[in-house]
Amino acid sequence: MGAVTAADRPSGDRPPGDRVPKQDRSRATRQRLLEAAVACLAEHGWAGSTVSVVAERAGVSRGAAQHHFPTREDLFTAAVEYVAEERCLALRALFPDGGADRRAVLTALVDVYTGPLFRAALHLWVAASNEEQLGPRVAELEGRVGRETHRVALELLGADESVPGVRETVQGLLDMARGLGLANLLTDDTGRRERVVTQWAGLLDVLLDGRPDRRATTSR
Amino acid sequence: MGAVTAADRPSGDRPPGDRVPKQDRSRATRQRLLEAAVACLAEHGWAGSTVSVVAERAGVSRGAAQHHFPTREDLFTAAVEYVAEERCLALRALFPDGGADRRAVLTALVDVYTGPLFRAALHLWVAASNEEQLGPRVAELEGRVGRETHRVALELLGADESVPGVRETVQGLLDMARGLGLANLLTDDTGRRERVVTQWAGLLDVLLDGRPDRRATTSR
Repeated sequence: MGAVTAADRPSGDRPPGDRVPKQDRSRATRQRLLEAAVACLAEHGWAGSTVSVVAERAGVSRGAAQHHFPTREDLFTAAVEYVAEERCLALRALFPDGGADRRAVLTALVDVYTGPLFRAALHLWVAASNEEQLGPRVAELEGRVGRETHRVALELLGADESVPGVRETVQGLLDMARGLGLANLLTDDTGRRERVVTQWAGLLDVLLDGRPDRRATTSR
Repeated sequence: MGAVTAADRPSGDRPPGDRVPKQDRSRATRQRLLEAAVACLAEHGWAGSTVSVVAERAGVSRGAAQHHFPTREDLFTAAVEYVAEERCLALRALFPDGGADRRAVLTALVDVYTGPLFRAALHLWVAASNEEQLGPRVAELEGRVGRETHRVALELLGADESVPGVRETVQGLLDMARGLGLANLLTDDTGRRERVVTQWAGLLDVLLDGRPDRRATTSR
């Protein structure tokens, strides 16, 4: 999954006319800053990511950046949250009918954790584990993003959370996706990851419905 | 799983006598440095981990530390490798008969990824993703440690890699363990993790042997 760009967003509330209203310009500036912040974090890590660097990358003055985000912590936590929300929207848009094909859904979920958003979030988490100011905010953000991703995963996998164990099965699958993302941090792990995802996609029906599929039967 | 200490190691090759030979003292110093380096990395991250800080923590002079490890990169990559090796030994020692109880094995494997070693390794990986000098060395180290952990996991889970798909199933389980470790970075995730591990322990037989166990049957 590539970076989500502001251009992809609907702007249905824009009034008719040639000139872009101030409110929309402000929103577009904010989005440019948030996307630049995630890209910066993914490429340079927390130590190399400052408001100035992001403002320059976004083509925005430092003052304008600080108008939107008074502190560095504000900017980067908002950035990770924004892109995570966009990503959930994009996942739902990919499977408008609720994702009948579980293999495709698992692949899309794992893709989320190997893109620039996961890399950016990882840098933010690791920095937060050593920075007092950042820690509680990022922990709270991580909880919110995790719950939303879990909701989307349940929905797209057609998993029934009222069945005992299904909630934890899906959580485990998302933990696996996160672990696969981590394995992709230093080297291109695509080949191995595709084999793991293919195998696990074949196990999904027995995992979620308790009935074996072809793969589980033939692999005895 | 707590930090592995030098005191736990057997020293069977130490000759009898009251005085500790020079070679053994040197080995003990090396181990103290390696353990201090992992603890330091886990607590303070890469930015806060220098040879001087580690030498002081280990009660070793800076000169002696540099005798053992000429560069900062030498020290920290050796530290993560050393503790990873100790951990594999400890895992095998925990299940001397090859781990008949798969639930206990899965729990022990996941525990590995929530301890100080994983935290230290995570800091090293993330730093390596932005530092040219560190990148290739840590990538190579990660590959070696990953292969060894995979071997131990196969053995303890009694998984037969000659059966198609079993290799990827076990890899996925280790990715899940890694993801669970990541989820524990900022908050104490013990409660959720225990529920996920309990559920997945109940799925292990059907995953690895293709036959459903009680849990998979009753959770329909």
